[in-house]
Amino acid sequence: MQLSPRHPRYASLRVRETLARAHESGLVVLEGLIAHGRGETFDYFLGERTTPSARKAERVAAEWLLAAEHPVVSVNGNVAAIAAGEVAELARAIPRLAVEVNLFHRTGPRARLVEAALWRAGVPRVLGVRPTAIIPGLPSDRARVDRRGIFVADVCLVPLEDGDRAEALQALGKRVISVDLNPLSRTSQVADVPIVDEVRRALREIVRAADAIKQSPNPPRLVPFDRYRALGDALATIDRELTRAAVRRRRPPRLRRASPRRPRETAGRSRRTP
Amino acid sequence: MQLSPRHPRYASLRVRETLARAHESGLVVLEGLIAHGRGETFDYFLGERTTPSARKAERVAAEWLLAAEHPVVSVNGNVAAIAAGEVAELARAIPRLAVEVNLFHRTGPRARLVEAALWRAGVPRVLGVRPTAIIPGLPSDRARVDRRGIFVADVCLVPLEDGDRAEALQALGKRVISVDLNPLSRTSQVADVPIVDEVRRALREIVRAADAIKQSPNPPRLVPFDRYRALGDALATIDRELTRAAVRRRRPPRLRRASPRRPRETAGRSRRTP
Repeated sequence: MQLSPRHPRYASLRVRETLARAHESGLVVLEGLIAHGRGETFDYFLGERTTPSARKAERVAAEWLLAAEHPVVSVNGNVAAIAAGEVAELARAIPRLAVEVNLFHRTGPRARLVEAALWRAGVPRVLGVRPTAIIPGLPSDRARVDRRGIFVADVCLVPLEDGDRAEALQALGKRVISVDLNPLSRTSQVADVPIVDEVRRALREIVRAADAIKQSPNPPRLVPFDRYRALGDALATIDRELTRAAVRRRRPPRLRRASPRRPRETAGRSRRTP
Repeated sequence: MQLSPRHPRYASLRVRETLARAHESGLVVLEGLIAHGRGETFDYFLGERTTPSARKAERVAAEWLLAAEHPVVSVNGNVAAIAAGEVAELARAIPRLAVEVNLFHRTGPRARLVEAALWRAGVPRVLGVRPTAIIPGLPSDRARVDRRGIFVADVCLVPLEDGDRAEALQALGKRVISVDLNPLSRTSQVADVPIVDEVRRALREIVRAADAIKQSPNPPRLVPFDRYRALGDALATIDRELTRAAVRRRRPPRLRRASPRRPRETAGRSRRTP
C-alpha cells in the first residue's frame, strides 16, 4: 500500500511496513508482529518520545555497559528488523560489547538472518548463531546461548526480551538492562535497569550518553539505579497522557452532517457481463 | 509452540495462535496481527472483561440493530478469524441483519476466505464478496461495498474498523456502532455507539441483549446514547487499572538471588564434529 507522508500515523505505519517485509523474509515471526502492536499502544501513551525518566535510565545503562567486564547486547528478530543500525552504533560506542543473536522462536535460518541483518548494518562480529552453552531454568530451545557472550556476561542489555529469559538471566546473578515499552511486563519488572522507551530511541540515547561518558575524566562505574522509581515514572506518564486524552476527548471535532455525500451505485460484476 | 494451559497468558496466547494460523491461510494480513497486539494492551488495561459501561453500549447496539430497517455487520479478516461463530449467532438473533465482507486490504481470494469462514460458522448468506457499489471519500479499493448491504444500510455494526471507513459511513448519514478496544481511536471517536470491548465478548453480549429485547413487549427503537460518556467511562477504567497496577508494582516479588544457578557449558557444534 502507498503511504502518504501526511498520514497522521506515517512514522508508525513505516515501521509496520518494515516489520511486514521482515516477516516475509523470515526474520520476524508472527508473534513479533503482535508484540510490536502491544508496544505501539504503550508508546502512544508515552507520547512517542523519550521521557526524562527514560533518558536517566539510558544514561545509567551507558555507564553500566562501559563499566562491565563482559557487556553483551542480545538481538532478536524484531530488534534486527527495526534497529540493526542502532545496534551497530552501540557496538562502536561500547568497545567491549558483544552482540549476540537470541531468539525466542529459534531456527538456524532465522539466526543466520539476524546475523546477516547485523552484518549489513556494520556489526563486525555476531555471536550466538551456533550456541555453545545453555542457561538453566528455560525450555531447551530458548536456553541456548554463546559461551563467549551471554554465558560469561556480567551486564546484559536485553531489548524486547521475554519475561522468562529476563528472569533466568537475573537468577544467574547477571545485571539486566531491559528495553520494553510496557512498564508492567515481567521483563521490566525484573530488570535492574528497566528502560521504558522505544528501542531505536533508547539505543541512540545510550550511544550519545556513552560518547559523553568516554569524554569525561571520571571512569564509568556501576552506579546505583532506582528501578522502582523508573517504573513508577513510566506509569505516571501513561496516566497523565490518558487524562490529557480524556480532556481532549470532551470536545472532539464532529463531522458535519449538513450535506451528506450520497453513495454511488456501480454496475455489479453480474451486470457487466451481458 | 506447545502452550501450557497453566501459562498466565494462556487465553490470550491461544487467540494469537489462531490469528497466526489464519495469517498462514491468507485470511489475516500482517497489519491485522499488529492491530491485534495494540488491542491486547487496551484489553489488559480494561481488565480483560466487559465493563458495565460497555455492557450498556452493547444493549443499545442490540436495540438499534433490531430497530433498523437495514442493519448490517461488516466483517474483516481478524473478525472472521476469531469471531465467525459469534457473527453467526448475531445473524440468528437479528433476523434482518446483513453480513458483509469488508476488507481494508482487499483481494478477491481474501474476500472468499472471509466468506468461507462465515459459511463454516453457519452464516447462510454473505454479501460483499463481489462489491456492487462504492461509498465516496475513500481510496477506491477500500470504498467497494455491496448494494444490498452497507450501501443501503441505516445502522452499521463495524467491529475492528479503520477510522477512514468509519468516518465515511458516518458522513453518509448512517448510524455507526463500532467495536474497538481503543477508546481513543478515530473509529471509537466518530461512532454513534462506540463499544469499547473485545469483539467476541461484545458480540455475545449483543446476542444476549437482542434475545431479551425480543422477549419484551416493547418494540425496539433507536434509543439515544451518550457516546461521550461511554468513551469517558472506558478511559476512566483504564486509568483506574493503571493506578492499581502502579500500587501493586510498589512491592513486586523479587527473585531470590541467594543461590544463583550456575550456567552450564555445553560442547559447541564446532566441537561435536571430531
